[in-house]
Amino acid sequence: MLDVVLLGTGGMMPLPGRWLTSCYMKYNGIGLLIDSGEGTQIAMKEAGLSTHDIDIICFTHYHADHISGLPGLLLSIGNADRTEPVKLIGPKGLERVVNSLRVVAPELPFDLEFCEIGGEVQHLSEQGYEIDAFRVHHKIVCYGYSVNIPRLGKFDAAKAKELGIPLKFWNKLQHGETMTDGESVYTPDMVMGAPRKGLKVTYCTDTRPVPVIAEMAEGADIFICEGMYGDSSRDDKAREYKHMTFTEAAGLAKEAGPAEMWLTHFSPALIRPQDFLKNATRIFPDTKIGKCGMSRVLKFSDEE
Amino acid sequence: MLDVVLLGTGGMMPLPGRWLTSCYMKYNGIGLLIDSGEGTQIAMKEAGLSTHDIDIICFTHYHADHISGLPGLLLSIGNADRTEPVKLIGPKGLERVVNSLRVVAPELPFDLEFCEIGGEVQHLSEQGYEIDAFRVHHKIVCYGYSVNIPRLGKFDAAKAKELGIPLKFWNKLQHGETMTDGESVYTPDMVMGAPRKGLKVTYCTDTRPVPVIAEMAEGADIFICEGMYGDSSRDDKAREYKHMTFTEAAGLAKEAGPAEMWLTHFSPALIRPQDFLKNATRIFPDTKIGKCGMSRVLKFSDEE
Repeated sequence: MLDVVLLGTGGMMPLPGRWLTSCYMKYNGIGLLIDSGEGTQIAMKEAGLSTHDIDIICFTHYHADHISGLPGLLLSIGNADRTEPVKLIGPKGLERVVNSLRVVAPELPFDLEFCEIGGEVQHLSEQGYEIDAFRVHHKIVCYGYSVNIPRLGKFDAAKAKELGIPLKFWNKLQHGETMTDGESVYTPDMVMGAPRKGLKVTYCTDTRPVPVIAEMAEGADIFICEGMYGDSSRDDKAREYKHMTFTEAAGLAKEAGPAEMWLTHFSPALIRPQDFLKNATRIFPDTKIGKCGMSRVLKFSDEE
Repeated sequence: MLDVVLLGTGGMMPLPGRWLTSCYMKYNGIGLLIDSGEGTQIAMKEAGLSTHDIDIICFTHYHADHISGLPGLLLSIGNADRTEPVKLIGPKGLERVVNSLRVVAPELPFDLEFCEIGGEVQHLSEQGYEIDAFRVHHKIVCYGYSVNIPRLGKFDAAKAKELGIPLKFWNKLQHGETMTDGESVYTPDMVMGAPRKGLKVTYCTDTRPVPVIAEMAEGADIFICEGMYGDSSRDDKAREYKHMTFTEAAGLAKEAGPAEMWLTHFSPALIRPQDFLKNATRIFPDTKIGKCGMSRVLKFSDEE
């Protein structure tokens, strides 16, 4: 199962009661954070999460509201006694930006590993997460992330017995390894059913509604999408500042067909986003207004 | 009158319900902020203050919990339509540290002016504030600040009449200017009484209890002082990390004799500082446990 917590819902600047937009996920003990603006570490604590459990941080882009909380967060991760490395993923320039911010956090008890992404779509396999970073359209280079947890097919014990595969190989075969025993070669496809439906969360903020977003969010369990402006009276602003209205986000969701869409990254001027929810639900009914700390436990379809 | 707001009371890391330690003052329309850790801009908004009204920012030192909120704060000041310059004051290295943090806030609609301080005590006259920066004893170079609002003597109108000083010169003389009228020279001391008691706030965090602190806080209206640890079981930690216990802070206050002391910069492990208040009040009775948003309006003794 995959835990998903939307830590904040603000765009541009943090406000009392509205943390900046970021998202934390945990799968199989591995924590993945997307973005860390000012206050994200406090939002994590409010949500009952430990900063220790951050293994991967993905950055959409390097505007302050998405990364300025990083130095404080790194220090807090250190103060939570983490010694294992933390993997940072983000557009080109990542190492330069992070090292510049680290002027106030030069010493950490763990290593940072950098992975700079480029191109239109880049696939990454990270500690059980299959991540697609996809380039969106903002004022500066910006990426969205589709986070996938694949689900292997079912192991067919009857077939393994029938084929006479020794018991000691079963576990490895289940984990995708090919085993040899003298002249016998056993491959996973001999005993594994077709891959089953996995889990998928697609996250994108700070962009105009470009087609790649709907492609990447196709069939997601949760599509977390920016809705900077509630109504179409802000269409001009959305175009100028390279953001989206609720209506535009809903258009993407309608095309992508996720189980649900969570709107987030609200403009500070958008005081009551729920007042504009209808602008999205009339196009994509399963839209929810994101709230700080809103969470979901996603389970595989055949998981208890 | 001088408005004083303690924006936060935390040390080391921000916590839910406890912003990092910083202090905002306003005198004669000029806003002065001391330190801006992660979340200070949110704390200002919670306290009903506008980020537009920040004319001066003093930094005690460059540990992240005292400055990492700066890039977001600067952007918010810009978003609040400020175009007038902001003066930054802090220990040597200020411009380097600030420019490094500004990797995520490169463009601002106002200028930054830098004033790097050095030596044991440095006096600064800034837009009505008379500021003494004094070197304290922390793990890195760190300063405390004594913020003074001087109060001129009373203007003696009867004497001005008696001396035959033309009415048109009175206002300038009251503001300290010498005026000449043909062969007549009028100096302020001819018509002004002795200087009256001004206002004074002394602020220091992140230090061992060194004598200069008590000297600088002498007779302050408010002495805002760190109390990282509540009880003396943490004496060793206080010495190791160059901080103070409540008892040590109270010892300084006893020597300085301020009207009151506000304790702040509590360790994250110090969950209920009020439980340890007695460790300070038995030495200095007028000690208060700082709270986020705690404020005071200080008036001159003869002010309505």
